Amino acid sequence: MSTTDKVLAAIDAGFDGSLARLLEFLRLPSISTDPAYRPHCRAAAEWLAATLVDAGFEAEIRTTPGQPMVTGHAKDTAAGAAGPTVLFYGHYDVQPADPLDLWQAPPFEPFVETGPDGVKRIRGRGASDDKGQLMTFVEACRAWRQVTGSLPLAVRLLFEGEEESGSPSLVPFLEAHRQDLQADLALVCDTTQWDADTPAIVTSLRGMVYEQVTIIGPSRDLHSGMYGGPARNPINLLARILADLHDSDGRVTLPGFYDGVPETPEALKAQWRELGFDEAAFLGEVGLSVPAGERDRSVLEKIWARPTCDVNGIWGGYTGEGSKTVIPSRASAKVSFRLVGTQDPVRISKAFHDFVRSRLPADCTAEFWSRDGSPAISLPIDGREVARARDALEAEWGRAPVMMGSGGSIPVVGHFKRLLGMDSLMIGFALEDDQIHSPNEKYDLKSFHKGIRSWARVLGALAGV
Amino acid sequence: MSTTDKVLAAIDAGFDGSLARLLEFLRLPSISTDPAYRPHCRAAAEWLAATLVDAGFEAEIRTTPGQPMVTGHAKDTAAGAAGPTVLFYGHYDVQPADPLDLWQAPPFEPFVETGPDGVKRIRGRGASDDKGQLMTFVEACRAWRQVTGSLPLAVRLLFEGEEESGSPSLVPFLEAHRQDLQADLALVCDTTQWDADTPAIVTSLRGMVYEQVTIIGPSRDLHSGMYGGPARNPINLLARILADLHDSDGRVTLPGFYDGVPETPEALKAQWRELGFDEAAFLGEVGLSVPAGERDRSVLEKIWARPTCDVNGIWGGYTGEGSKTVIPSRASAKVSFRLVGTQDPVRISKAFHDFVRSRLPADCTAEFWSRDGSPAISLPIDGREVARARDALEAEWGRAPVMMGSGGSIPVVGHFKRLLGMDSLMIGFALEDDQIHSPNEKYDLKSFHKGIRSWARVLGALAGV
Repeated sequence: MSTTDKVLAAIDAGFDGSLARLLEFLRLPSISTDPAYRPHCRAAAEWLAATLVDAGFEAEIRTTPGQPMVTGHAKDTAAGAAGPTVLFYGHYDVQPADPLDLWQAPPFEPFVETGPDGVKRIRGRGASDDKGQLMTFVEACRAWRQVTGSLPLAVRLLFEGEEESGSPSLVPFLEAHRQDLQADLALVCDTTQWDADTPAIVTSLRGMVYEQVTIIGPSRDLHSGMYGGPARNPINLLARILADLHDSDGRVTLPGFYDGVPETPEALKAQWRELGFDEAAFLGEVGLSVPAGERDRSVLEKIWARPTCDVNGIWGGYTGEGSKTVIPSRASAKVSFRLVGTQDPVRISKAFHDFVRSRLPADCTAEFWSRDGSPAISLPIDGREVARARDALEAEWGRAPVMMGSGGSIPVVGHFKRLLGMDSLMIGFALEDDQIHSPNEKYDLKSFHKGIRSWARVLGALAGV
Repeated sequence: MSTTDKVLAAIDAGFDGSLARLLEFLRLPSISTDPAYRPHCRAAAEWLAATLVDAGFEAEIRTTPGQPMVTGHAKDTAAGAAGPTVLFYGHYDVQPADPLDLWQAPPFEPFVETGPDGVKRIRGRGASDDKGQLMTFVEACRAWRQVTGSLPLAVRLLFEGEEESGSPSLVPFLEAHRQDLQADLALVCDTTQWDADTPAIVTSLRGMVYEQVTIIGPSRDLHSGMYGGPARNPINLLARILADLHDSDGRVTLPGFYDGVPETPEALKAQWRELGFDEAAFLGEVGLSVPAGERDRSVLEKIWARPTCDVNGIWGGYTGEGSKTVIPSRASAKVSFRLVGTQDPVRISKAFHDFVRSRLPADCTAEFWSRDGSPAISLPIDGREVARARDALEAEWGRAPVMMGSGGSIPVVGHFKRLLGMDSLMIGFALEDDQIHSPNEKYDLKSFHKGIRSWARVLGALAGV
């Protein structure tokens, strides 16, 4: 029985303990975007540090101006370990849980349920994004140490608590701790598989620009009877501006928006077609049937290789029960852009501000709040580490991983490259239907279990064991 | 000293008491649109009924499916009173107070302040709309009775508690109580003066259609990374639909919307020009300088004689602090239309529903909630009663009242005409800057005092005293 097989056996034997630890972790409402939850983020950081120590790491909680970082490194590495030094990254913060009334159970009282399909799922905010995912790696390391007394290669850890709120402290932290964090390769577990039976390695990520705009018209709320007609209504104006962001072909109209957007190579499109992706099923699963966005592009291309603009939130005027005939003084929206290729977040943020301002009458003003943007990323798909990870995943799943793009943004991957000169190996076990950022978030028990086993194999493979 | 002069003297002598009663009334948060305030509406109805009895009326609280009605009639009418029987109408409910953080003092803790301009103002929700206004009539009756032991003509009273929430119980109530409410003329005190020194009689009112729409796209909230592009975003869609409601000339685009909208006669426009209305000052007072709405029409024409469409509220997605990259399942808006001429509320409501549905992709749906609409109204400006009221107001203010249009809707005036065959005489003492429906609502002490004196004179004049 090979060492790796012994580690896998230990993982299976100890799985109940792994699950119990994850459920404990999920009970901590570490919502980073809402200041009211700051103490809960701190508690989650402390829980994680203690758990790392218990798993055989040295761990530290590092204070930042925002939520704390948790760092660690393996106490024991196998003598003469041959593999690269790896830095594993994950985040212990979670998305806000609203709208609460759509949750079938309280978001921070996690439990395991068996669906009508017989599939066992862990329910709760953060089950998939990213607490469940980061714990797959921690539990894999725990098993290696339990069986061999050490890890097969040098492992460093970085867990942040601000991933869901724009990571304001991340860049300064990376700059200040280059030494402790330096490694040959970053391992990131915050992405999805291709499907429930097929693993994936993510080789490209979309970037992000996130803007909040408030349009201010009258100096106070007005009665629409006395003022309706001659008085500018900031909601009508905001609606017009947001509508103008897209043309009738679904393209974004910001001047220069498509600068740096590469045309997808025919060869790549052909590969994607071979994946046999079921567009109708993908949209049908969320109650949709008519693809939105740019005309004449496949759903996969839209998500993996095309930029977007979405309004993520809007509010203004009277939103209570019943009717109120008010012309409000202000109206606000949160607008985000997903970027690809070499689109420049700074220029797009500026283009958005100019776009809004150019549409304001002389007596209206706009206030902006911008989250730090991130450019899109693409990673090398050759090289020894990627090859070894592929083999390890194929051994676990019985299928070669799909080398796929991701529609999401993981800014840290860009920061690792830019600040630490490190490429990232993005392997995740989430599924499209995990409902991350939605009510009733879940993580399949199988995702968690085989995720742990997958990392155990990848660690062995990278070490050449 | 004429009887009327004695009554006016009694009003001046008793004004402190009148003010104390109004402040008591304003302490009751009778917000009709919010079910949570139902007990407070009841309390306001009870306070009003008791106050009417104290002023010499028989009063009753009439239960309805919604907020109660308060009715009354004068116990004592002057022997051989010559004038018409009048039905006075007002409403004891008030607008919601939100946004609360913009109030300089709690909305239901009213007080009298002296402005930097030396003007004394009563501050509090309902001070002007409509508690202060309805009390001008009640206090005028109180003074007449105090001086003469009776009222100079037969007076009936109707106070409703649902004016700010669409008056759902009003029509059934009028139909059920035709007998008790029948009169020769309705008196309505819910409008503004021309300016602080010039009274007005309102001869036309805009009608109203009020709609709430919810656009439903995905069956659940989605992560904009995983779904952004191919997944329909209901906020983007709602913004497009709302933007489409106006063309670039500020005209409403609903098919058939302008059916029944009369072109304003040149003669009337000329009269309005003679009023010397200061458009810049009117807009400047609320921080605006660029007239919105239809091109090539004066501000007065837009408010008095043109229909409008305003979004009164909008909400969807994440509206909390920070950022959340969500594509929400639904987005909602409250949209109202002001009507003129013979525009048909029923047809316009249907046109709006069709307009929205025609813009939905096959996989999105819309839910609607509609408040009962009301057509626009115009009233006869000749006739003995109007002439007598004009003279009475001129005697009080030293200036003839302006016969003006009003941009607001007072559906009850239409119901009185249709169900009871009664015209209404609309005389109000509110000012444009009373901030009704806004934070920091106020009613000038002068409006309240001279309002009471004005009604005392009008009652005498109608009675031919």
